[in-house]
Amino acid sequence: MTDTHHAWSLAERPRGEPTRADFEFDESPVPTPNYGEVLVKVQYLSVDPYMRGRMRDSESYAEPWAVGEMLEGGVVGEVVDSHSDQFEIGDVVTGNGTWSEYAVLDAADTQAIDTDVADPPAYLGALGMPGRTAYFGLLEVGDPNPGDTVVVSGAAGAVGSVVGQIAKLNGCDVVGFAGSDEKVAWLTDDLGFDAAVNYKATDDYRSALDDVAPEGVDVYFDNVGGPITDAVFSRLALDARVAVCGQIAHYNDESVPTGPRKLPQLIATRATVRGLLVGDFAPRFGEASEQLAEWVATGDLTHRETIVDGLEAAPDAFLGLFSGDNIGKQVVRVRP
Amino acid sequence: MTDTHHAWSLAERPRGEPTRADFEFDESPVPTPNYGEVLVKVQYLSVDPYMRGRMRDSESYAEPWAVGEMLEGGVVGEVVDSHSDQFEIGDVVTGNGTWSEYAVLDAADTQAIDTDVADPPAYLGALGMPGRTAYFGLLEVGDPNPGDTVVVSGAAGAVGSVVGQIAKLNGCDVVGFAGSDEKVAWLTDDLGFDAAVNYKATDDYRSALDDVAPEGVDVYFDNVGGPITDAVFSRLALDARVAVCGQIAHYNDESVPTGPRKLPQLIATRATVRGLLVGDFAPRFGEASEQLAEWVATGDLTHRETIVDGLEAAPDAFLGLFSGDNIGKQVVRVRP
Repeated sequence: MTDTHHAWSLAERPRGEPTRADFEFDESPVPTPNYGEVLVKVQYLSVDPYMRGRMRDSESYAEPWAVGEMLEGGVVGEVVDSHSDQFEIGDVVTGNGTWSEYAVLDAADTQAIDTDVADPPAYLGALGMPGRTAYFGLLEVGDPNPGDTVVVSGAAGAVGSVVGQIAKLNGCDVVGFAGSDEKVAWLTDDLGFDAAVNYKATDDYRSALDDVAPEGVDVYFDNVGGPITDAVFSRLALDARVAVCGQIAHYNDESVPTGPRKLPQLIATRATVRGLLVGDFAPRFGEASEQLAEWVATGDLTHRETIVDGLEAAPDAFLGLFSGDNIGKQVVRVRP
Repeated sequence: MTDTHHAWSLAERPRGEPTRADFEFDESPVPTPNYGEVLVKVQYLSVDPYMRGRMRDSESYAEPWAVGEMLEGGVVGEVVDSHSDQFEIGDVVTGNGTWSEYAVLDAADTQAIDTDVADPPAYLGALGMPGRTAYFGLLEVGDPNPGDTVVVSGAAGAVGSVVGQIAKLNGCDVVGFAGSDEKVAWLTDDLGFDAAVNYKATDDYRSALDDVAPEGVDVYFDNVGGPITDAVFSRLALDARVAVCGQIAHYNDESVPTGPRKLPQLIATRATVRGLLVGDFAPRFGEASEQLAEWVATGDLTHRETIVDGLEAAPDAFLGLFSGDNIGKQVVRVRP
């Protein structure tokens, strides 16, 4: 093991769209784990849209990244030093680490992964936080019933692709919005979505919805916001449920975004709109992980990762989320 | 009894703000009740903000008024002819009638009123549809807990004034937004609101909320929409509930109103926003009417009506709702 490693830190807080210049690549001493911690050699790290919020100075549901400090995020890695009874050297685990070659993980928030069920990157996607977000967000906030029409925005992303498949497992008609013909084909051909709309090929989302969801939208799982969401709100069915999971269309906005007011539409439909944060369901993470793994094992749940190679590429992988470069979960393989 | 009477009908569908010219005053034969109906001599009729929606051609939760036909709405009146076993001549009842001197009511939707509990106009307000809206909207959608901060917009109106008092009965801290110092004084001095903001005396509603609801808003009962609602959304507490009852600020908009997007705020707060229509609670109207009457009888619930005199004044009374002329429930006394 070397004494030093490379890591990404936050160079400065971006205004508007982040750029590569907001990130800094440094060499520093490999950290030492304390009691209850493990040191892992990072194999894969996760880049997620919610991290844009951590680049801001303002307090929100996720703690802001500190300028000059290593960036934090989910990782998969191999334990190379353990100060915890829970893990031994050689274990492959997932937990909250850093954008670096080596990372110290709190054993209490770290789980061993089962590579018989899926390859390691899946534990940052369908079998990790995005999968659990889809599971609780759809089932607890979306409250789908068999026969419901479920619409998902960002449907080909890490969360959306799982949402649609769980909705299908619950007997729903599922429509996805995604940003390319390739994504649309993946949703309908491989994941079993009933229909999908390439939102970059049209801007008349209302007409698109009239075609694919003629009886209105019972459940809307929103990862995106903006004009797609405006259109879906205009097509909500009576007693519809909207799970607001992400609003990636607005994460780079510097002023408060404006758009059509939606509250008048809620009266006519008596729709329920609720914000969703997976951390609120932490006491039930075990249930979700078990169910998701079972679905993967039985082939009921298809997962896909878009992998970029090299720790150096991590900022680009993150920035690519905002232009929709990824299909399924975007991960970084630290050492190709 | 005369053979003819006067009635208001819809002259034409307004664009934007309605005017007196949209209403037509006619003389016509007094109608004859059929089996299961009663004819009442109308004493009081109700004008309500939701009626603006009935002036539109578009289907919504309330059936559009037909051009050239008598306007429909809640009334209190004395039975002068009964084709129902349920009511006798001389009974004073409330039900769905018309803006006219005499009205035919469907006995199935008609209730006798108890003038020992309150004077007849209260049965169009705190003891009628607005009171039931407040009851179910606050208790079922707002889901208030003791110690919660409850904010009500349109707080001095027929619904809002009851909402705030029921919230106080449930141990909440209650803040109202209303449009005059007189209304503010009524809310705090007579109804027991903890604080009230005259929204016409400031446009910095955020700062006003920071003063009167420093720990954020747990329950927001919205009758208004627009900038007050924008400010309240920016001050929602964790797990807040928003009951969307009315959006009077937008009822006269001819194009879709725009404003700050609110969904991003819902993620951080995990707030729940739900549209509310009292008709959904029809099977439980008896429970609400009984409880509201009990609170009035015990003095726990104060009600107030703004009464204009003469059927001729009905359109003006309706139009006055949009400038906030009323304190409490606006009713029309048909014959002074």
